[in-house]
Amino acid sequence: MQMAPQMGYDRAITVFSPDGRLFQVEYAREAVRRGTTAVGIKAVDGVAVLVDKRITSRLMEPESIEKIFQIDQHIGAATSGLVADARVLIDRARVESQINRLVYDESIGVEVLAKRICDFKQTYTQYGGVRPFGTSLLIVGADEERVRLFETDPSGALLEYKATGIGAGRSAVMEIFEEKYREDMDCDQAILLGLEALYKAAEGKFEASTTEIGVIKLEEKLFRKLEEEDVAARVEEMKAGIGGEGVGEE
Amino acid sequence: MQMAPQMGYDRAITVFSPDGRLFQVEYAREAVRRGTTAVGIKAVDGVAVLVDKRITSRLMEPESIEKIFQIDQHIGAATSGLVADARVLIDRARVESQINRLVYDESIGVEVLAKRICDFKQTYTQYGGVRPFGTSLLIVGADEERVRLFETDPSGALLEYKATGIGAGRSAVMEIFEEKYREDMDCDQAILLGLEALYKAAEGKFEASTTEIGVIKLEEKLFRKLEEEDVAARVEEMKAGIGGEGVGEE
Amino acid sequence: MQMAPQMGYDRAITVFSPDGRLFQVEYAREAVRRGTTAVGIKAVDGVAVLVDKRITSRLMEPESIEKIFQIDQHIGAATSGLVADARVLIDRARVESQINRLVYDESIGVEVLAKRICDFKQTYTQYGGVRPFGTSLLIVGADEERVRLFETDPSGALLEYKATGIGAGRSAVMEIFEEKYREDMDCDQAILLGLEALYKAAEGKFEASTTEIGVIKLEEKLFRKLEEEDVAARVEEMKAGIGGEGVGEE
Amino acid sequence: MQMAPQMGYDRAITVFSPDGRLFQVEYAREAVRRGTTAVGIKAVDGVAVLVDKRITSRLMEPESIEKIFQIDQHIGAATSGLVADARVLIDRARVESQINRLVYDESIGVEVLAKRICDFKQTYTQYGGVRPFGTSLLIVGADEERVRLFETDPSGALLEYKATGIGAGRSAVMEIFEEKYREDMDCDQAILLGLEALYKAAEGKFEASTTEIGVIKLEEKLFRKLEEEDVAARVEEMKAGIGGEGVGEE
Amino acid sequence: MQMAPQMGYDRAITVFSPDGRLFQVEYAREAVRRGTTAVGIKAVDGVAVLVDKRITSRLMEPESIEKIFQIDQHIGAATSGLVADARVLIDRARVESQINRLVYDESIGVEVLAKRICDFKQTYTQYGGVRPFGTSLLIVGADEERVRLFETDPSGALLEYKATGIGAGRSAVMEIFEEKYREDMDCDQAILLGLEALYKAAEGKFEASTTEIGVIKLEEKLFRKLEEEDVAARVEEMKAGIGGEGVGEE
Amino acid sequence: MQMAPQMGYDRAITVFSPDGRLFQVEYAREAVRRGTTAVGIKAVDGVAVLVDKRITSRLMEPESIEKIFQIDQHIGAATSGLVADARVLIDRARVESQINRLVYDESIGVEVLAKRICDFKQTYTQYGGVRPFGTSLLIVGADEERVRLFETDPSGALLEYKATGIGAGRSAVMEIFEEKYREDMDCDQAILLGLEALYKAAEGKFEASTTEIGVIKLEEKLFRKLEEEDVAARVEEMKAGIGGEGVGEE
Amino acid sequence: MQMAPQMGYDRAITVFSPDGRLFQVEYAREAVRRGTTAVGIKAVDGVAVLVDKRITSRLMEPESIEKIFQIDQHIGAATSGLVADARVLIDRARVESQINRLVYDESIGVEVLAKRICDFKQTYTQYGGVRPFGTSLLIVGADEERVRLFETDPSGALLEYKATGIGAGRSAVMEIFEEKYREDMDCDQAILLGLEALYKAAEGKFEASTTEIGVIKLEEKLFRKLEEEDVAARVEEMKAGIGGEGVGEE
Repeated sequence: MQMAPQMGYDRAITVFSPDGRLFQVEYAREAVRRGTTAVGIKAVDGVAVLVDKRITSRLMEPESIEKIFQIDQHIGAATSGLVADARVLIDRARVESQINRLVYDESIGVEVLAKRICDFKQTYTQYGGVRPFGTSLLIVGADEERVRLFETDPSGALLEYKATGIGAGRSAVMEIFEEKYREDMDCDQAILLGLEALYKAAEGKFEASTTEIGVIKLEEKLFRKLEEEDVAARVEEMKAGIGGEGVGEE
Repeated sequence: MQMAPQMGYDRAITVFSPDGRLFQVEYAREAVRRGTTAVGIKAVDGVAVLVDKRITSRLMEPESIEKIFQIDQHIGAATSGLVADARVLIDRARVESQINRLVYDESIGVEVLAKRICDFKQTYTQYGGVRPFGTSLLIVGADEERVRLFETDPSGALLEYKATGIGAGRSAVMEIFEEKYREDMDCDQAILLGLEALYKAAEGKFEASTTEIGVIKLEEKLFRKLEEEDVAARVEEMKAGIGGEGVGEE
Repeated sequence: MQMAPQMGYDRAITVFSPDGRLFQVEYAREAVRRGTTAVGIKAVDGVAVLVDKRITSRLMEPESIEKIFQIDQHIGAATSGLVADARVLIDRARVESQINRLVYDESIGVEVLAKRICDFKQTYTQYGGVRPFGTSLLIVGADEERVRLFETDPSGALLEYKATGIGAGRSAVMEIFEEKYREDMDCDQAILLGLEALYKAAEGKFEASTTEIGVIKLEEKLFRKLEEEDVAARVEEMKAGIGGEGVGEE
Repeated sequence: MQMAPQMGYDRAITVFSPDGRLFQVEYAREAVRRGTTAVGIKAVDGVAVLVDKRITSRLMEPESIEKIFQIDQHIGAATSGLVADARVLIDRARVESQINRLVYDESIGVEVLAKRICDFKQTYTQYGGVRPFGTSLLIVGADEERVRLFETDPSGALLEYKATGIGAGRSAVMEIFEEKYREDMDCDQAILLGLEALYKAAEGKFEASTTEIGVIKLEEKLFRKLEEEDVAARVEEMKAGIGGEGVGEE
Repeated sequence: MQMAPQMGYDRAITVFSPDGRLFQVEYAREAVRRGTTAVGIKAVDGVAVLVDKRITSRLMEPESIEKIFQIDQHIGAATSGLVADARVLIDRARVESQINRLVYDESIGVEVLAKRICDFKQTYTQYGGVRPFGTSLLIVGADEERVRLFETDPSGALLEYKATGIGAGRSAVMEIFEEKYREDMDCDQAILLGLEALYKAAEGKFEASTTEIGVIKLEEKLFRKLEEEDVAARVEEMKAGIGGEGVGEE
Repeated sequence: MQMAPQMGYDRAITVFSPDGRLFQVEYAREAVRRGTTAVGIKAVDGVAVLVDKRITSRLMEPESIEKIFQIDQHIGAATSGLVADARVLIDRARVESQINRLVYDESIGVEVLAKRICDFKQTYTQYGGVRPFGTSLLIVGADEERVRLFETDPSGALLEYKATGIGAGRSAVMEIFEEKYREDMDCDQAILLGLEALYKAAEGKFEASTTEIGVIKLEEKLFRKLEEEDVAARVEEMKAGIGGEGVGEE
Repeated sequence: MQMAPQMGYDRAITVFSPDGRLFQVEYAREAVRRGTTAVGIKAVDGVAVLVDKRITSRLMEPESIEKIFQIDQHIGAATSGLVADARVLIDRARVESQINRLVYDESIGVEVLAKRICDFKQTYTQYGGVRPFGTSLLIVGADEERVRLFETDPSGALLEYKATGIGAGRSAVMEIFEEKYREDMDCDQAILLGLEALYKAAEGKFEASTTEIGVIKLEEKLFRKLEEEDVAARVEEMKAGIGGEGVGEE
């Protein structure tokens, strides 16, 4: 009889289970685990995010499935999980950035922004009448002297990574990063490693046309998404590299 | 004993199931899947929406079952699912369009409008005391340089398609589009393909008198619904085409 | 064990069932199906509504069971379902009509009014803390150039009919209309057909004294209820007609 | 196992059952059916209400169990069901009457007042956080040209009767009225019939000292309650009549 | 399995059971039936209330268990049930009395006050988010020409008695009153009868030191509580009386 | 199967059980019964409160476990039960005291303060959306002519005692008081008796270092807590006394 | 069948269990018990907090897992449990500190701040619509004449310790402290003892790079976190000490 778990998850507020976990938050994480795979990788000269959009029909307009967003000039984000929830969070992040410009006349710090988003998410795990957000974000950006790569999750927890992944392919991706990531990579190498990770997580079902890449260089401090041709060229390069000796070692 | 599922769906808020899905949203999608079939197809010179209204009694006034609506001069929409919910969303879309005209003195972008409607829908999936909308919309329109075709669903997710369908006949319709849709079609060909798809999804129970067609040409940027005679003529043409060699190949 | 259905219907909000239906709305429709039978029929020169009030005791004052109401000079309505709910909706309709007169200095359109009532009803199906209205309305009226006949239901759905029925006798009534309704009928013929339908739906338990008839002519644009004697005369005529060759064929 | 019905009735809002009934309303009616018996009877020259107060202990002050109330000069009411709820409704009715006097400088119409009370009651059946009123009222009064007798129930439904009863003895009372009520009775005869009905409903356990009688004559338009001696005299008359040939035939 | 009753009583609002009772109200009455015994008795020249405070430990300060309260100069009350609830009601009654003095510059009528308290109690039985008061009050006082004795219960019902009791000993007390109460008693006799009733209800476990007596004479219109010595003297007198021929017959 | 009690206690509001008890209040009392033992004893010249703080680890700072609090110059309190709830009540009491000083320019009466705290507690037992306080207080103080000792419990009930105890050791403590308490004790004797009671309730696990004593003399009207050395000296004295002939008999 | 506990913990408010415990609070404590181990130790010249951050992947940026926070110049805190909840509490504490500076122009007392945080936490255990905080804090700081070390828990309870630990390793840590803590330690010795405790609680899985140490000296009254190299040096020292004769005895 499966009654108990059925009754356990559909209540009006996120509460603790006897072992101290917040069920609704864990189920929201499950929504992320069902999402598209997104990765972020820091390099010495910048930071990149890459997403495999998993488009299943030729009738879709690929650009309408946007998974990488510009938040501010110097900040971008990749999302995984419920797409409507992601849009709410991206909008919130953009507004927070603009408020900072208006109030302090300077661009918002990447970590400050990431914390604001996480505080916003936390609220949805403690008060009644709402559910948590079913979305994780990778937030990347450039501060004065270094680039940042944050991962936020439905609980409002915030972690900074050198390289990380969210979504369905997370564990496959992390395995590759643990093995091949080097802190002295430059942005081009990081993108190749990110593509390799997405490629392996997708077990071959992977096309340049459904891949999004966003990058920000420490020098320029301008987040931008790569053009379709650029993406295609990098994918070719990555595939060639895997065929030879592996990306990380080149 | 069937107690658990019964208890699982009738709570005061949309919450996550253990596998990360939002049950009320999925059930709302089911309401759409029980609705009338509507299709949208982009052409090089415009975009069309078509609906098969499934009128079952000669005593009904067919025009009272309105499934295609003008939102603004340059935007229209087709709906499927709960009709009263659809009316609320169409009203909302019309108001958003007029607000844009008043505030910015220009017509609203098609994508901006579609996002506003989806943000509105998302709210009904995250806060307590409401249920999600049981309606999907196909939103079509013409921006400065191209036509757009968006599909919204009860979760607030937004996708752009080249050709798509919602409602009871969705899978039948998509099969035909996958096979026969070509990006170089013009509006007339797109309408014929749309009619063929509705015709096949209805398995023959299909009449011109209960079919609605809305179209907007990129050149004119004026959304309009075809007159009854025009619809009838196109249906004849479609039927003739199927009898011959098929619409898509002509 | 019948626990599950018992638990399924008594919650604080109208929510979706797994197959995409709104249970509270469907149960409210059931309240209508238990109500008195009301019919509406369009004619070339007007539109009529008729109700069989089913009075069971000689101690009741028949006129206190009012089922046909004047909304505005040019609009009337017949109701079926919970009588207290009906009174709320009729009051609302009257207020909406007067607001329109005050704001625009003209009488409200019949369809506009019907939509307002339906939008009002829809609200009671989407927000928590209320139940849907257990009442359907037939709204009839005369616009500039034609008469209208709308049926609203507890979901807030709105349909226009040539001829239709609500309440306990709906299916019996519709059967007769499907067979005998002709669009070229005049008001007198429409009333006879309506009486016949009520008569057959009631399986003979039918009296002129408990029948209400409301009618509006396109020319006059004044909704009025027939006097008791008029009703009695029409009932006699109807009974005679049935005895002979049937109403619709005369 | 009796779990399902137990769970079915104790929820926070009045909702529909699958067969379209409002359970809380029906249970509130049950509270009325457990109440004291009250009857109302129209006569050609007035209208009367009578209540059998069922006083069980000689230690009670009979006049503190008030079941017949003056609402306004020309309106009175008898109640059955929860006494505290009845007091709330009577207070409301009195306030509505005075508001009418203040706003329009004229006495309120009996039907207008009855509808106001019923609209008030209906609210308690559709919104959350309240329960319906467990009280029915017989509202009697005199308008310009005729007397009125309304019965309200917990749903907010309103009916006018020639003669009717509420409370525990309702069915016994109605049986007698169906048999013996004549529209050409005068007030005195109506009171005798009402007493007979109460007497039979009480199966003999009936005393003048615990009977209340209120009456309003069309001519005077002043509602008043009979003095104890008057009541006693009428009861004697009634008992004598029954012993002889029955009240209705005299 | 005892699940159903357990689930039946602990909901957020007082609702009707299928047989028309309000469970929370009946359970609140049960709280009164567990309370201390209080009696009230009208006499020709005044009215008295008496309470047996049931003090179980010599360590308690008897006067801190106050069960008889002065509401206004001319009104007093005895309580039974939840003591904290009683305090809230007594405070409310005192405020209502003072408001009356301020607004009308005269003392409040005893019945008016009793009704205000009962209306206040009724509110707690019809609206969500509160529970009924678990307290009954005997309200005594002197109006211009007579003394009054009201009993209020958790439902907000109000009854006037010649002699009555509340709390654990109610049925024992009422039996004695039914047998021995005479309307021509004077205050002293009434107090003796009340003491006898408390004495018999307590089955001998009864002491003067834990008995409170409040009395108001029609002539003085001043409610006062008897001094401890007075109480002791009366108790002695009562005990002597019982030993002889009984109080009521003296 | 233990389902019913599990479901019975975890609802959103404090409601009555069928036998007239408030479950949440009784469970809150249970929280007090799990708390530290506190006693209060009146003497002819003052009143004392004593607490055994039950410190289990040498790593704790004993003074951080504060169980006796000064409320105002002339009032103190000892608490048992949930410590965070106690802090809220103590803060409230201090604010009430200061408000009294500000508004009336005089110190608050001890009983007035105790009633204010109890009224505050009662609110948490009657309204939804809160739980009762899981804390009892012994409130002691000196009025103009005598000292007072009140016990408040989670229901908001208020009792005055000559000597009393709360918390885990209550019944052991009361047994000793019933046996040995004498009203003619002075403060020193009262403290010795209190220590003896705590000592016996703790069954020997008792240390001067974890004992708090608060005292107020009628003459000084200043509540103060004894210094650690004073406490130690009294404990020695008590232990010596028990070894001899017992405290109460000296 | 495990239904009962499942149903027991997921309600909208923190309520009492029959044995007087607050389930949601206990489950929140469980969340703390699953958290990282943090310890605090008072010394004669200051107080230190230490955390073992348990970083599991080389891809994380260790400094992004912040477990020790500066609250004000003279106050710091270590957290364990839900990280997003901890951030909320730390933000609150910082704001409270600044308010104190603004309002009183002086730094907040350590105990005052700790009580404010605990009062804030208590609120989340008594009111509906929220859940308790799943976080414990060790709050350390320097007042005028001494250092303080407070532990707060999800109930809002507040205790001061000489040495204590929270999180997964609590019991292992406390065992070591009970054995080895001496009040005459200086800060350096306290840090070594804290490191030993964390080392033993982690059963060897312990690295300097994932250890945070915060310290405040009584003399300086400035809370600061040790640099990475300092931490590494202390860890070496601790490991050497354990190898020899043990930290506490040196």
